[in-house]
Parts: sequence; C-alpha cells; structure tokens
Amino acid sequence: MERKGEMSDEEVLSALMRGDLKMHEIERAVGGDVPRAVELRRAFVERKTGKHLRNIGNFSFDAEMAMRRNIENMIGAAQIPMGVAGPLLCKGDASGEFFIPLATTEGALVASVNRGCAAINRSGGAYAFVIADGMTRAPVFRANSVQDAINAVNFIRDNEDKMREIAESTSKHLKLKEIQPFFVGRNVFLRFVCETGDAMGMNMVTIATDEVSSFIEEHTSLRSIAISGNVCVDKKPSAVNLILGRGKTVIADVFLRDDVVEDVLKTTKDAMFEVVMRKCFVGSAFSSSLGFNAHFANIIAAIFIATGQDVAHTVEGSLGFTTAEVEEGGIHFAVTLPSLQVGTVGGGTSLGTQREALDIMGVSGSGSPEGSNARKFAAIVACAVLAGEISLIAAISARHLTQAHMRLNR
Amino acid sequence: MERKGEMSDEEVLSALMRGDLKMHEIERAVGGDVPRAVELRRAFVERKTGKHLRNIGNFSFDAEMAMRRNIENMIGAAQIPMGVAGPLLCKGDASGEFFIPLATTEGALVASVNRGCAAINRSGGAYAFVIADGMTRAPVFRANSVQDAINAVNFIRDNEDKMREIAESTSKHLKLKEIQPFFVGRNVFLRFVCETGDAMGMNMVTIATDEVSSFIEEHTSLRSIAISGNVCVDKKPSAVNLILGRGKTVIADVFLRDDVVEDVLKTTKDAMFEVVMRKCFVGSAFSSSLGFNAHFANIIAAIFIATGQDVAHTVEGSLGFTTAEVEEGGIHFAVTLPSLQVGTVGGGTSLGTQREALDIMGVSGSGSPEGSNARKFAAIVACAVLAGEISLIAAISARHLTQAHMRLNR
Amino acid sequence: MERKGEMSDEEVLSALMRGDLKMHEIERAVGGDVPRAVELRRAFVERKTGKHLRNIGNFSFDAEMAMRRNIENMIGAAQIPMGVAGPLLCKGDASGEFFIPLATTEGALVASVNRGCAAINRSGGAYAFVIADGMTRAPVFRANSVQDAINAVNFIRDNEDKMREIAESTSKHLKLKEIQPFFVGRNVFLRFVCETGDAMGMNMVTIATDEVSSFIEEHTSLRSIAISGNVCVDKKPSAVNLILGRGKTVIADVFLRDDVVEDVLKTTKDAMFEVVMRKCFVGSAFSSSLGFNAHFANIIAAIFIATGQDVAHTVEGSLGFTTAEVEEGGIHFAVTLPSLQVGTVGGGTSLGTQREALDIMGVSGSGSPEGSNARKFAAIVACAVLAGEISLIAAISARHLTQAHMRLNR
Amino acid sequence: MERKGEMSDEEVLSALMRGDLKMHEIERAVGGDVPRAVELRRAFVERKTGKHLRNIGNFSFDAEMAMRRNIENMIGAAQIPMGVAGPLLCKGDASGEFFIPLATTEGALVASVNRGCAAINRSGGAYAFVIADGMTRAPVFRANSVQDAINAVNFIRDNEDKMREIAESTSKHLKLKEIQPFFVGRNVFLRFVCETGDAMGMNMVTIATDEVSSFIEEHTSLRSIAISGNVCVDKKPSAVNLILGRGKTVIADVFLRDDVVEDVLKTTKDAMFEVVMRKCFVGSAFSSSLGFNAHFANIIAAIFIATGQDVAHTVEGSLGFTTAEVEEGGIHFAVTLPSLQVGTVGGGTSLGTQREALDIMGVSGSGSPEGSNARKFAAIVACAVLAGEISLIAAISARHLTQAHMRLNR
Repeated sequence: MERKGEMSDEEVLSALMRGDLKMHEIERAVGGDVPRAVELRRAFVERKTGKHLRNIGNFSFDAEMAMRRNIENMIGAAQIPMGVAGPLLCKGDASGEFFIPLATTEGALVASVNRGCAAINRSGGAYAFVIADGMTRAPVFRANSVQDAINAVNFIRDNEDKMREIAESTSKHLKLKEIQPFFVGRNVFLRFVCETGDAMGMNMVTIATDEVSSFIEEHTSLRSIAISGNVCVDKKPSAVNLILGRGKTVIADVFLRDDVVEDVLKTTKDAMFEVVMRKCFVGSAFSSSLGFNAHFANIIAAIFIATGQDVAHTVEGSLGFTTAEVEEGGIHFAVTLPSLQVGTVGGGTSLGTQREALDIMGVSGSGSPEGSNARKFAAIVACAVLAGEISLIAAISARHLTQAHMRLNR
Repeated sequence: MERKGEMSDEEVLSALMRGDLKMHEIERAVGGDVPRAVELRRAFVERKTGKHLRNIGNFSFDAEMAMRRNIENMIGAAQIPMGVAGPLLCKGDASGEFFIPLATTEGALVASVNRGCAAINRSGGAYAFVIADGMTRAPVFRANSVQDAINAVNFIRDNEDKMREIAESTSKHLKLKEIQPFFVGRNVFLRFVCETGDAMGMNMVTIATDEVSSFIEEHTSLRSIAISGNVCVDKKPSAVNLILGRGKTVIADVFLRDDVVEDVLKTTKDAMFEVVMRKCFVGSAFSSSLGFNAHFANIIAAIFIATGQDVAHTVEGSLGFTTAEVEEGGIHFAVTLPSLQVGTVGGGTSLGTQREALDIMGVSGSGSPEGSNARKFAAIVACAVLAGEISLIAAISARHLTQAHMRLNR
Repeated sequence: MERKGEMSDEEVLSALMRGDLKMHEIERAVGGDVPRAVELRRAFVERKTGKHLRNIGNFSFDAEMAMRRNIENMIGAAQIPMGVAGPLLCKGDASGEFFIPLATTEGALVASVNRGCAAINRSGGAYAFVIADGMTRAPVFRANSVQDAINAVNFIRDNEDKMREIAESTSKHLKLKEIQPFFVGRNVFLRFVCETGDAMGMNMVTIATDEVSSFIEEHTSLRSIAISGNVCVDKKPSAVNLILGRGKTVIADVFLRDDVVEDVLKTTKDAMFEVVMRKCFVGSAFSSSLGFNAHFANIIAAIFIATGQDVAHTVEGSLGFTTAEVEEGGIHFAVTLPSLQVGTVGGGTSLGTQREALDIMGVSGSGSPEGSNARKFAAIVACAVLAGEISLIAAISARHLTQAHMRLNR
Repeated sequence: MERKGEMSDEEVLSALMRGDLKMHEIERAVGGDVPRAVELRRAFVERKTGKHLRNIGNFSFDAEMAMRRNIENMIGAAQIPMGVAGPLLCKGDASGEFFIPLATTEGALVASVNRGCAAINRSGGAYAFVIADGMTRAPVFRANSVQDAINAVNFIRDNEDKMREIAESTSKHLKLKEIQPFFVGRNVFLRFVCETGDAMGMNMVTIATDEVSSFIEEHTSLRSIAISGNVCVDKKPSAVNLILGRGKTVIADVFLRDDVVEDVLKTTKDAMFEVVMRKCFVGSAFSSSLGFNAHFANIIAAIFIATGQDVAHTVEGSLGFTTAEVEEGGIHFAVTLPSLQVGTVGGGTSLGTQREALDIMGVSGSGSPEGSNARKFAAIVACAVLAGEISLIAAISARHLTQAHMRLNR
C-alpha cells in the first residue's frame, strides 16, 4: 500500500492542486514522514491561498505524536503568549506556593490574576477543596413505552454490580461511581459517573459507557440512540452540571483582611460586596445566566490553553458562583466551580509546552495515588480563579476597569 | 540588543529569588529589553520550580508587541497543534471556498470537521447569514427608589441622541445602535449595543459605555456600581444572549441530499434526525441547557485559538441550536449561533500565527467597507460549525463515535 | 322553569348511563335549559361515582353566562375560602388604601400578607409602577431555508404599518406595539406585542395574530405551523418573559424604617437582608430558578382565584425578583414582576364573586381611559406581593415559619 | 379577655370603622361565633368600599373549620365554575375510568380535555406511573469557611440514621428518604426528601426539617439562616425540580392509532408531530423555558382549584415535557411531570366542594396502604394532562385554536 518516498514534493503539491490527492492522504504519499507531510500540507495551503505561513511552521513539539493523538491535517501550530501569575499560596487539596501559567491574548488578564494572588498571599493563602469528582457520559435510549422504560431501569438498578464490572473492565483507571437514570417520556438517559484517575477521562468514560450500553441493549428493550444524549453534558452550559457537578467540583475561599483590601486592592470591602451583589447575583439572575461570577472563563481558558486541557471545557468552567460576605475585620470571598474538567495525563498534556506548563505547577503526569495530581491541579485552578475574581471585582469596584485596559493599551 | 539596564542577568535572578524584585518589574530592571526580560522571567520560574521550560521559550512573534497588547509577565508561548479542514464551500455572507484553521489537542476534531465539509461541498455549499451584529456592555446603576430609576431611564430615552454622540466620540469605529434598559427593583441595567467595525469590540464598547455612564451620573440620580453588570453578558452562559444576541448572530444551513448522507456520512437521514431530536432537543431540554447542539464549542474553541480571538468567548459560542428536518430527497440542517464574538483586528489577531490563520481565510485586518471582514469571518465560522455538527451527528447516528476515538488512539 | 326538552330527567340520565347521550349534549337534550342541564349532569356524575355532590351544586352566579364564556360540561362550582388583607396604602400607579381579596386554602397566607400591609402602611405606603404593558403571542412559521426566512422577515419589517392595520382591525381595544422576530434555523417566531385595554387580552391578541399570519402566509413563503410557538410564552416559565416582559411588568418598593422592622416585623434588617441574599439569590441561583423571590406565587394565585383571572398565569407570576438593601435608618425592599397577566374585563371577571372581589379594590370593568383599570389592578397586585414577601422573609428571618404554621394548625 | 356577645353588630362595625378593632379581632369580639364574624367582616368591607358582596357571602362549607385550617380574615368564598371531562380510561398506577373535575373560567378548556379523553379511550387508555415520590425542603446554613462546611456535611453523612430518627419522630406519616447536600461557597443547602403519605406534605417536611436543623446546629458549626433556602424549590420554577423531581414525578403515555387521530382529533400525526417539535421543543428552547409542553398549567390549575390543592403549585406543575413520536400505525404521545405536588388529605382537601371533587375520582382521604390515594390521584392528573396536551396540539395542528375560541365566544 505504502509508496515510500516515490513522490517528490512537487508531485505531491501538484496532485493536491489537481485534487488527485486529499490533504489527509499526504502522510501516506510521503511514506509516513510526518514532518515532511506537515510541511507539504502547509505549502499546499500557502499555494491555494497565496499567503505565507512562516510562523505556523515554527513549533517544537513532536509532530508524529501530535498527529497520533491530537490533530489531523496538521500544518503547524498556533503560538499563544504565555505569562505567569503568582506565586499563589494554596492550602487544602493543593498545598504550597504555585506559579500559574496563563496563555492568553487578552491584555491585563495575567496582571489581574497576579494582583489577586498578592491579595490572597497577604491574607495567609486560599483554601481549595475538591468536593466531588466524577466524569460523566449519558447515552440516550429509546424504549417502546414508559412501562418498558421503567422495567429496563429497574433491571439496570438490579444489575449495577454487573454494569460496574463491565465498565471497569474497559480501563484499569476507571471506577464507576453511579448510574443516574432520567426519564423524558419513553426516552431514558443513563448518566454514568466515573472516576478516571489523573485523566480528564471523557474518552475513557465513553468507552466504558459504550460497553455497558451494549449489555443493556442485549438484556432490555432499550435501544441506544446516541452515546451522548446531552445529559452528560459536554461543552454545553447546563443546570444539570451546575447542580450535580461534572468532572471536579471545587470550592476555594479566603478571608481578605481590611488592610489587604485597602493596600493591595485599593478599594473597600463594602464596595466589593456591592459589586458581587448587583453584578454577580442580581445581574446574572436577570440574564438567566448559569454563571454567577465575574470572569471564571478568562482564567480557565488561559490555564487550559497553557496546560493542554480540552479548551472547549471552558464552557463548563464558566458555570459557578462567586460569593462575598462582609465581616468584622475583612471580607470572605469564595468561588464555587461545579464542573471543572481537568487532567494531567492524556489529551494535550504531553505536548512540549503543555507538559512544561503543568511542570511549573508540579502536576504533570500521573499522581500517586492515582488521581491525586488531577485533584491537586483542580484545586490550584480554583485558587487561581479566586485570585482572578477578587482582582477584577476590586478593580470594578474602584471603577478601574476601563482605565486599566486603556493604560495597558487595549 | 538594548542594554540600558544596569543589572546583570544573575543580579536580576538573585533579586527575584530574594523577593527584592517582582516579576513584572523585570522589564524595567533590564532597561526595557523585552526579549531579555522574557528569558529572565522564564529562567526565574525554572529556578523556582526546578523544571526546564525549553519549549515555552520557542516562539516567533514579536514579544514587545505582545507585551504591550496581549500579555503580562510573559515567559514565552504555548504551542497548540494546528490543522486545516476543507476546503469548505460557503455562500451568503461569505462566498467562496475556504480552508478552516483549527488549533486543538482533541484528536478526531479536524478529521470530523473535514468530513462535514465534504458533505456540504457535495451538497452545493452552505449558506450563512449574519442576521444581527452588536457588541454589548451593560453597566449596573443604583437608584434611590423605583420612581427615581424610572425617571432616570426616561431621561436616557429622551437624550438618546446625546448619548450616541458621546459614545461615538470615543472611537471612529463605533456606532451605538441601541440602549436597552432593564430594571430589577431600583437597579438599572443599561445594555449598550454597538457596531464595532472589524474588531470584536468589547473594549471599545466598554470605553464608550464608561463615557456615557459619566454623563448619566451627572444628569440623573443613578450611581454606577459596575461597568459590567452581567447583563452584557460577557463569558457567562445566559439566556439574554441566546435571545437578544451578542456580537454576531449567525445562521448557516445546507440541504444534504440522500446520496450525500449515504456516501459521505455513511448513515441515514432518519437516524441523523433521531439523534438531533433526542440528544440536541430532548436531552438538552432535560439538562436545562442553553446549548441545543452537539459540539459547537469544539469548533469555535479551535478556530478562536488559531485566529487570536478571545478564547473565553467559547462560552457564548456554545449557545445555540442545531436543527434537522427530514424532507423528500434529503435532510435540511441548520446551526443558529446567537452570540458569536469575533474580530479580524485587535486582540490577538495581529500575532504571528494568528494573523496567518486569518490570512488562510482571507479575512485578516480591516475589511472594506469596515466590518465586512469580521462579518465574513463570522459566516465562515458558522459554516465550519455546521460542518462539525453534521459530521458528529452522523457519526453518533452510526454509533461510530467511540470507535473513531479508539482508532485515533484516545 | 323551561321545559322545551322532550326528555324527562330520568330519560336523560338513562341515556347518559347507556352512553346514548354525551355529557356535552345535555343542554341540547333539555331544550337549552342550562340550570337543569347542570343539575342533570351532576346527577349523572353522582350516579356513576356513587358520591353526593351537594356542595358543588351550591353556587350563585349566572350558569348560562358561565356556560357561554367560562366552562363546559358544568356541574356546579368550587368554593374557595376568601379572606381580605389590608387595608394597604398604595402610591404610584394605584393610589389609595385597598383591601386585598385572597382566595386560598393555605392557612397563614392572609395573615402573613396582612402583617406585610401593616409594615408598609406604617412606612408611608408602597410605590408601584407598571413599567411595560404588552400581551404577546408568537406563532412559529417554517421557511424553506434561512435565506427565505430572512427575506420574509424583511418583508414583515417593511410592512409593519400594514400588519398593524390588519391587527388593529380585529378589535377596537387592541394596539399592536411591536413584532419581535426571532430565528432558529429556518423557523421564524414572530412575537406580537399588543396593548389590550383592560382585558388580559390573550385571546384578543391571538385573533389579531391569526389575521396577520394569514396575510404573511399570502405574501411570503412562510408557512404557519402553530399559532403559539412557545415564544409568547404562555403558562410556561421562561427567560424570555423574565427579560422582555409579558402582560404587565410591574415594580413595587418601600423603605421600611428600623422601628417598623422591629415593632411590626419582630426582626432586624440585617437578618432580613441575609435571608434575601442566601435564599432568594444564592439559593435560587443554585437551583437554576427563574424565581428569585420567596413566594410571589402564593399571593398571585390567591388574588387570581378571587378575581377571575386565568389562574394558570400564576406560572408567569412566579417569575421575578425580591431585592433588599440595608441602609441608614431602615431597609429598602422591592419586588419586580416582569410578567403579570391581569384584566378587569373578560375571562372570569364578570362572574358573581369575582366581580365583587374586583369591586373591593375598585377595579372591576373598563377603566377610563381604557386600560387604566387593569394597570391600577396590576399595581395593587404588586404592592400585595411586596407585602407578602416582606412578611414571609421577616418570619423566616425570625425562625418563625414553622411555629406560625403549627400555631395556625397546619 | 373575651367579651362573649357583649358587642352588637353595629358596635363591632363602628369599632372597625374607627380603627379600634382590627379585622382579625372580630372573632374574639363576637365570642368566637365564626359565621357571624365572617358576616361582620364582610359587612365592614362593604361599608368601607361601598360595594355589595352578596355572592361572596354564599358558601356551604364549614366556616369554622376553614378558619382553623385554611384562611384568616375570612369574608366568604370565591365560586369557580366546575365542569367534568371524561370518563378517562387510565392504566398503570391508577386503574379504571375517571371523571376529571376541572374548576376554571377559561372557556374551551373542559371541552378540550374532554376531547383528549375520547382520543385516549378510543386508543385503549393511557398508562401513568409515579416514578418518584418525595416532598422536599432545603434550609440554607452558613458555615465559617468552606472547610467548616465540608466538615459539617461529613458529620451529617455520618449521622444520617440519627437524622432520620429525629425527622420521623415528628410525624408517623413521614419517611426521610434522603438528605441531598449542596454547597455554594460556605453556604450549605440540605435538601430533605421525604415521603409524606397521602398528604402533599410540605408542612410535614418543614416541621421535620426544622427539628433536624436544630440538631445540626447543636452538633456542627452550621447556622441555619432560612428554613427554606430556595433549593427545595417551592412555587418557583427551577431546573433542580425538573431534574431531581419534587413531590410526585409522573409520566403518562398513550399510543394514538391513525384512525383516532383522524376521526377524533381531525388532524394527522405528522402535523401533530410538527407542532410538538417546533413549538414544544424549538420554541421552548429558544425561550429558555423550563416547560417543554403546550399547556400543562391549564389542566393542573383547574384540577388543583377543584380538589383543594395548593394552587400556587401550578408553578411546578407547568414544568415538564410533551413528547410525540410518529410510528407505523399511529403516534406515541407522552407527558413527563417531574414535580407534581398533590395530596388527598390536609390543605384544602376536606372543604365541601373539594372533597366532593376528590370523591368523583375516588381518591379523597387516606389511602390504604398510606400514600396510595395520593399516588393514584397523581397518576390520574398526569393522564388528564396528557388528554389536554393531545387535544390542544391536535387543535393547533389543524389551525383550529382561534376558531374554537371564537366559536365558544371568548
């Protein structure tokens, strides 16, 4: 089949221009020489569009590995500026001082998180706890009638041990925690909740779910319609994830003393509270938003890009709550992230820059015990989000937002 | 090149380690030599963490420009693998064949979009239309009473021309389209809706809003509490953006013929329809989701990373609807994206790889007339999202999802 | 009295028992003698079920009129205990002291509203304003393609005057304020917003919408699928009504002085505020609720039953916000009801007890100018809801809730 | 204190007019003669408003009992026209033919449900199943920190048996099924889920929750802020009730044969399906509604008024899904009601007309075993809702809605 080295670069390009060769066939046409294929594909796009793609060709990760795991029709890489905020003093499920790598093109973001870190550090650090941990996948099945649906779910409840056995046979990293059944008419949604070690785990859970689904189809009248029935819910904002959680559910809090609010944040606790109340609660309530916070998504997107997470999970990362409560001597701040999907193995985590970014926080690869690295990472992310919230809310409360942006020239 | 700084590299690092110098002060300490500052900061992080950050140091964009506009405390860049899907035949507000640059670490995504492009092309192309265009910012004000709030809003309504004049005086690219007033008790939210040329425009609108807010505070009893009151809504999922739109509201559709469904997508239109119905509608409805689609966010995140958009806007990009309707001879597919925030100037769009990715689609920089490039880009994005939806729904309907992921090694 | 019917009572009952006569045919069988038909139908149900329905037969309204307008297959009436709260001092769009008729079976409700009235009166009265007024109906249309949909909506925008003329020709009480077009793929929803005088107006708007829809179908490629496309939205909770309003949008507020909070409400303003914050905002946010309040629905259901409103509109009545803000000298309380559907003519408003209940507030029948009665009524309802919220939140804050219920024996 | 019989009617009225006697003091002033007190109070309102309240005085239930359980400041009763639909053939958790009592002032409603019953009966009856049963109450507690909150919840998990014992000691009818803990920052919501026999049970659960809360406050650092923290969620629309259920979760379905659709419903299954798709799913999705149905609330409000339920629970009754699926030979219709709160004892169920209405369905009073009557009633309600949905959707699909309303004169 392979015709190693038989085509010259120009032959490949000509064949592509003529349409005799498809973009995804280049690797084969050049005998599996991935770097060469990447260059030829980029050259082809340059020829078709008449544009030079010099920068896209500049990258340092292993193209072959990326083509196996992360990308198809590769032409190179996007470079996203990376900065660091911190150090950030964390307690609870992550303990120590951490630098936070943030890859972003939004000016002022790193500076803002950095200021939040200073406020937290001066207050003795932030506590973060992973209060729930379970990646989900929820296939949708069709029954013949509601009665059939109920019978099938009863069968599933009666055979949970068998289901667990099947699910856990698909991966030594996976533990099936629960199957949550939901009904809409004769549609049955089974929300599989699994621990997945240090991996974000969506594919792992999908494979397990698929296997269990086959068993269910064999033993009941249910017919699987879609391996994901949007009750998981993956990459769509939803109340089900807000309420029941998905991936890691993490909460972080800190008590900011009056002097920290004044000296570091240049505002008052009453002003900060008023912003949280009117913006994060009254405003979000009116908007029928699922995000009762200031800008979770900014911090999460930046960390996710830097560390090889699935960036589309920023969607779930935007869900959640920032709460503030004025007390004698200071203000209590907390962030609640119900649905944080992170991993330290798999996905994009082993690419060059991504692994280094995880290294900066000391969380790359598998933890010991398994799962501990991902949970530690989740706790750090929550503390970074807390830093970002504190800083932005302080800035808004001092009417600094626009000015800051202007000064930083955007 | 520059060497104004009096401190040697080691002196800088020592000062950093001792805490006598802060990370954001390095630029100043080395006389404004940005590349050197970036290297020193990275070296500092390496020293603190004991990790090598070789790959992060590898980038080809202009560090000085990035530090002015996009990042603080820069240590380098994240590299995200970039592939291309297409060409994709577009009609309507974007016309022609386009390659779609996608930066992602999620294997199978580019291949999936690519297959959707093939299905669309074989069906004669997809139509996309930008049906609304307006970036928003909604400050929250406090009135003394409901009556005061009403009086103030009446004043604002009576002085819309003046407000427009003030708003538009802040930028020649900005047009104030509307101020939407909303009340919650004595809280007043004013949602400013503006056209912002080819820029995504959030900062532009923020500046204009801030200026108008000052005028309002001078002439009414309203007191501005937060320049963003979460009725904008930026980077949080919300019904207000789903219903009223934010940024570009775009719809794309295509009629897939029976033979295309069979030959390219290897499934049937009835099976595809059933997945859309049970997953995208029944499932999302049960989840109280604002995303009635399969995976908008995947395609949007990948294009946004590639092209220098604000990636946290993936949150709003996940909102919207995929609809499918079986007809004689084929199936009608459409995607509705109510809240797509894109720009071809500003933000991260002028960085090296990002500009090239926009170049691939012929949409980098300002359009003529102004705004036309951003709208064309939005239309292309919608067609790419359509391609992604078609392909994934087809795959699910053929129970191919897990297998595809397994074959591609995840 | 009438005896036109050729069938005796026993003949009618026997025919019913045999199934030769249907329940809705009784009126005809007894020559249109409605009271007799009602009695026979009740007798039939008694015979079928073996139960005595003595109380259901006890009513004093005009059965014939009710059968024409309000009910079919009538067997009598339900009696709901009615109490009054108040007087309640109102200002703004309703001015004066009003007794509030409440028909309910939930013990403690009237007493609770009554206490809230006392607190409001002692604070100088509550202000209420109807800030928007428009009943809606939104048919859904199907277009052939997105492009067709856009063309059709452009036609509609270009012909709004004609639409208005058609709509307003269907009733002298109706004014078409706006047609709000929304797209989902090739589905077009046209949300007609109308003023409807003193009537709640849903049927009036439906008739007007139907007429305009016919015109649209004649002149565009749109095909009407459903006269209500659930974007109206009638009797389902929805963000669109929360944000854009439906029926009357009303806000009421009051400043409760410290002494009133202490003497009348037996609590503190800080305690009340804390309940509003944690229950009405944090709790409702977590629940993904559209009701950020304590118990709007209780007061609205009770007034609606008493006054002949469409009780299913309690659903929209439950939407909205209770806000509280602690100040020097007292606490500011407000309720925001975005979607209050009320009328003083039509529906059940002319039945015996219902008209009397409206009379108690001085708002039965048409106002002068038209619409003023319904708006005044809406303002009173909002003040009553405010009273109910204040009282319940005060009770909760004093941990009185359970005890109050126990003392009142439920 | 009591001055039995010492005041004449005129003395009472004069004292009321002067403000020397409050409305709620009349009972005491007339020696506890409730009927006389009711008349005097009504006379007072008549004098104050100058209106005759002849009809409101006409009622046949036991005023004394009502004043003890259901109402304060009573002046009489509202009369709501009551009709019956049916008989309706039910299977599953309610078995047999049932007449459905509907108290409403919305013309066409009874007729519409009646037609739906005919369609269901001709199809062999509808199946309904109560798939979950649990009334909820969720107090909100404040902890000192997130860590404290977690510790407290761990204590609660470890002591569930003790909690159960305390909860169940408050009523022999109550069974504590589960305590669902939720966190927002340092707020803890504990959602108590209880079976409550044949009572709707809200007060029963509140009392039990209050007792357990005291225990929790004694043994942890949690401080109860509100006995209801809006995560219950009572009488506010919410995703948490849609997803997790509250009260009864009921599903009903029926397979309508082609001939029934044609003969009884005068439409086609394809037309019905299209209405369900575009209205109940696409339309409701766009509206960000929690009600994916046509008019659940209408049927529920009418049954609730007739049978003495808490009518404000119509809010939760409006949540849920109507699904329709075209098949060979007919169309499958189902309604899913996640949150139906009903009881056959307590509340307004023992009032005269209300008990009779329950009697019509054979479900008044306690069931044997306990709870069976309430569940049977819930199943009947679901079948009636199904009938209402089928009929309205059929009518819409045949463009009959407006015409039907016009013909029936509203």
